[in-house]
Amino acid sequence: MAQSLDLQGSFHVYDTTLRDGAQQEGLNLSVADKLAIARQLDGLGVGFIEGGWPGANPKDTEFFRRAVDELDLRHARLAAFGATRKAGVAAADDPQVAALRDSGAGVVTLVAKSHDRHVELALRTTLEENLAMVRDTVSHLRAEGQTVFLDAEHFFDGYRANRDYALEVLRTATEAGAEVVALCDTNGGMLPDWVTDVVSDVIASTGARIGIHAHNDSGCAVANSLAAVAAGATHVQGCINGYGERTGNADLVSVVANLELKLDRRVLPDGLLREATRIAHAVAEVTNFPPASRQPYVGTSAFAHKAGLHASAIKVDPDLYQHMDPLGVGNDMRLLVSDMAGRASIELKGRELGFDLSGDRELVTRVTDRVKEMEGRGYTFEAADASFELLLVEEVEGVRPAYFDVESWRVITETSPAAEAVSEATVKLKAEDVRYVVTGEGNGPVNALDAALRSAIGQAFPEVAKFELIDYKVRILDPSLPGGHGTDAITRVLIETSDGESSWVTVGVGHNVIEASWGALIDGLTFGLRKHHR
Amino acid sequence: MAQSLDLQGSFHVYDTTLRDGAQQEGLNLSVADKLAIARQLDGLGVGFIEGGWPGANPKDTEFFRRAVDELDLRHARLAAFGATRKAGVAAADDPQVAALRDSGAGVVTLVAKSHDRHVELALRTTLEENLAMVRDTVSHLRAEGQTVFLDAEHFFDGYRANRDYALEVLRTATEAGAEVVALCDTNGGMLPDWVTDVVSDVIASTGARIGIHAHNDSGCAVANSLAAVAAGATHVQGCINGYGERTGNADLVSVVANLELKLDRRVLPDGLLREATRIAHAVAEVTNFPPASRQPYVGTSAFAHKAGLHASAIKVDPDLYQHMDPLGVGNDMRLLVSDMAGRASIELKGRELGFDLSGDRELVTRVTDRVKEMEGRGYTFEAADASFELLLVEEVEGVRPAYFDVESWRVITETSPAAEAVSEATVKLKAEDVRYVVTGEGNGPVNALDAALRSAIGQAFPEVAKFELIDYKVRILDPSLPGGHGTDAITRVLIETSDGESSWVTVGVGHNVIEASWGALIDGLTFGLRKHHR
Repeated sequence: MAQSLDLQGSFHVYDTTLRDGAQQEGLNLSVADKLAIARQLDGLGVGFIEGGWPGANPKDTEFFRRAVDELDLRHARLAAFGATRKAGVAAADDPQVAALRDSGAGVVTLVAKSHDRHVELALRTTLEENLAMVRDTVSHLRAEGQTVFLDAEHFFDGYRANRDYALEVLRTATEAGAEVVALCDTNGGMLPDWVTDVVSDVIASTGARIGIHAHNDSGCAVANSLAAVAAGATHVQGCINGYGERTGNADLVSVVANLELKLDRRVLPDGLLREATRIAHAVAEVTNFPPASRQPYVGTSAFAHKAGLHASAIKVDPDLYQHMDPLGVGNDMRLLVSDMAGRASIELKGRELGFDLSGDRELVTRVTDRVKEMEGRGYTFEAADASFELLLVEEVEGVRPAYFDVESWRVITETSPAAEAVSEATVKLKAEDVRYVVTGEGNGPVNALDAALRSAIGQAFPEVAKFELIDYKVRILDPSLPGGHGTDAITRVLIETSDGESSWVTVGVGHNVIEASWGALIDGLTFGLRKHHR
Repeated sequence: MAQSLDLQGSFHVYDTTLRDGAQQEGLNLSVADKLAIARQLDGLGVGFIEGGWPGANPKDTEFFRRAVDELDLRHARLAAFGATRKAGVAAADDPQVAALRDSGAGVVTLVAKSHDRHVELALRTTLEENLAMVRDTVSHLRAEGQTVFLDAEHFFDGYRANRDYALEVLRTATEAGAEVVALCDTNGGMLPDWVTDVVSDVIASTGARIGIHAHNDSGCAVANSLAAVAAGATHVQGCINGYGERTGNADLVSVVANLELKLDRRVLPDGLLREATRIAHAVAEVTNFPPASRQPYVGTSAFAHKAGLHASAIKVDPDLYQHMDPLGVGNDMRLLVSDMAGRASIELKGRELGFDLSGDRELVTRVTDRVKEMEGRGYTFEAADASFELLLVEEVEGVRPAYFDVESWRVITETSPAAEAVSEATVKLKAEDVRYVVTGEGNGPVNALDAALRSAIGQAFPEVAKFELIDYKVRILDPSLPGGHGTDAITRVLIETSDGESSWVTVGVGHNVIEASWGALIDGLTFGLRKHHR
């Protein structure tokens, strides 16, 4: 592990996605998920990966067992999270502490109370015993060869309620051998100026090495983390994509990108920040939360330009409208086609897709008008480049690309007691002058239609066998229209199709979700066939 | 309009959702949408609502025409957004400027270049002419009786590139009669400490009244806004729910809540901040973007507690785990049922629903185990209280509430050339000892099933006529499982049903989206019937 940057030394980037991030509402990670995420975090080059609480639940115990065997970490060290010993028990005799020591991680992050009321009301012990619990547990784990960090829970609230006691907890941990004491804004209500004041006082008063653990309840998690670092903290905790309980933890990517790209602090190994967008999206795949398009730095919209005003200026100089080069985080500038976009956007988008429209003012007007009209009916081309390209080709060549001619389709879904529902679709179409009537089955109506459609067209165009529907999204539009409640509203479907080499997104719209899906399926196949027939 | 707080005086809360917010990717607002949002913003008590750019497109022109007639604003004033006059034309002769003057808003916010490179490369005029454009346009509009604000575009980048010129633009506007000059971080790359430095220097150097317009590209929009206010800005711009181009504008609710609740600044009329959650969600309904559950202050997860550790402590004292009282923004604490929740969460959730489970340890264990098992298969009870309540009743009473017995169902969707797809569902079931075979039609398969189901059950239970399906959400789970691509994956459906008095959410899961929808429909009807039969 020869690193020019000492990841576990002068500055710690400490990820807690697998522990604190997993507390997010709706987020459930299997052991396999946690291992997959740990590999991605290591690829980003973080210094520490907090894997969970070994001994607290079978999943986390299993994670550490497998992580030690299976993960071949290149940059990060694993950290086991757990509590100080129980009141009235020796640290060496506490099985919870033993599980931390034996996790194989080598780094233990101990959560400790630093707010006097929490000690008394939640922990139900005395302030003195709490200090002894910190001292004993840290000393014991250090004696057993562990690196120890302390998470001072509710530190900022505790500091406000009883500064002396909160500081005493930090001093006790540091004197017992904790390498870092991380100040946790557990309830997430801090503001940056307050963080600056507290961190400055803590460093002046204790001399301890300070970390920051921020939550986003006031919308300031990233700024609070930066404020702590500016005041002298050298260990920053966060979660990828800002996952976490309630409003989430500090988004580690935003914090790190601000530190590296705006404040000239080197905190990741060379070049790895350029992997941030790919990694943030890969982790989102594992968690099954769709990536937040507006996420700073790595969101798909983070460098997307829509307004006509902006699009014109971008033709002159892209840097005029970007706060940084998106390549620095592995993201890219995008131009959006929408009814707010003027002719300049359409022209630029055409260029992006390989069409030079600059010579044909009338064509650009026609495309712009058609986009506006279709978006008014619920279509969106911002996310569906392939459907936009088909529209563009139709306007440029005067006829829409078509490789088959559909006569009709039908799909039936039915069930009976104790049987899983089955869907069966029949499609009638003509391709290369042959008529096909094909029936396909599937786990759902769209799946069945897709099977029937590809089976029919595949007889005329064998390359269709490589096509695969890899993503399917449904959105209900305009439920506020008259009669437009719930399932009765307009539906928009986005479908992503892959041929193993690349993938493309198409859009369909309709009152009927099946009809909307059908439109997107047809566009998806047509785009794929055109790609192979050019 | 008797206000104890002078909303248009000492401190401006200036909303730009209808103009800058509407530049968000995927956001399309009709005139009716804009009017509906304006009413909500007025209900929140903002001082100014920027309605759009009259004259720039027919939609915005129409908005101002209708807004002046139809909106009966109690707190806010409308502002029209537009540009300074064209180079080489008198302000009085510029039709764009005339449209601003004639919008009926009475307040004009002029965007002007303050970055020298933008003047030369994007605007293609001289630095001197740009100053003249600012001076003339402000003077003309002031002479015409308008209140004028200036949005200094790209101010922070311009200040860095050419401080003297950037300041000169502000001075020119102020001397010509602009009441506020708003410093725009148009590319959104600023950090709070930098904002503090620039705003302090601007105020010291120009004496102008300063506003802040922040974007979230560095994840610091809220903190940047607060930093500007701390440095002396008295006009803060933002968008509800943080809508806006790329990563969005500063979330106005977070900014205002921090100012009012944490920094003791009165910026909204008394009591209106308590409407923030309702209003933020109502606007989300109009935009058709689902409310962000992790949004600070107003997100459904913002005061949701999941971890067993937290849930136990909350039993002792809720304030130990909240950064503020959620009622302050009209939100509420929630306890989440999930496989990470221990018995304490289930017990508290039961209490929330009116079941005292504290005396029955075995029951709590049974419910906890069943929740974990079902969540493992894709169910979620965090959002589906009604399905959880049915599960709880089943465990408490030993039998699941049932008012009908389904024999089978089938749904067909078909189309032919030139015809819209139609769906037809047949349901066979028994209710009150009578067998019903009913067929329903609909715009989609779930709509048809819902119609057939309610028509059959409605014959036995007439109250079903009042039930209405008001929301329908589909989510594809686990596309990463073997064979689990696209439409072939597990599907989770959430359905919200209303009886006109209240509404409830149920969940269904299955490989087949129709089957998953069916499960949620059945739970929705059962919950509603139980509510009426208790």
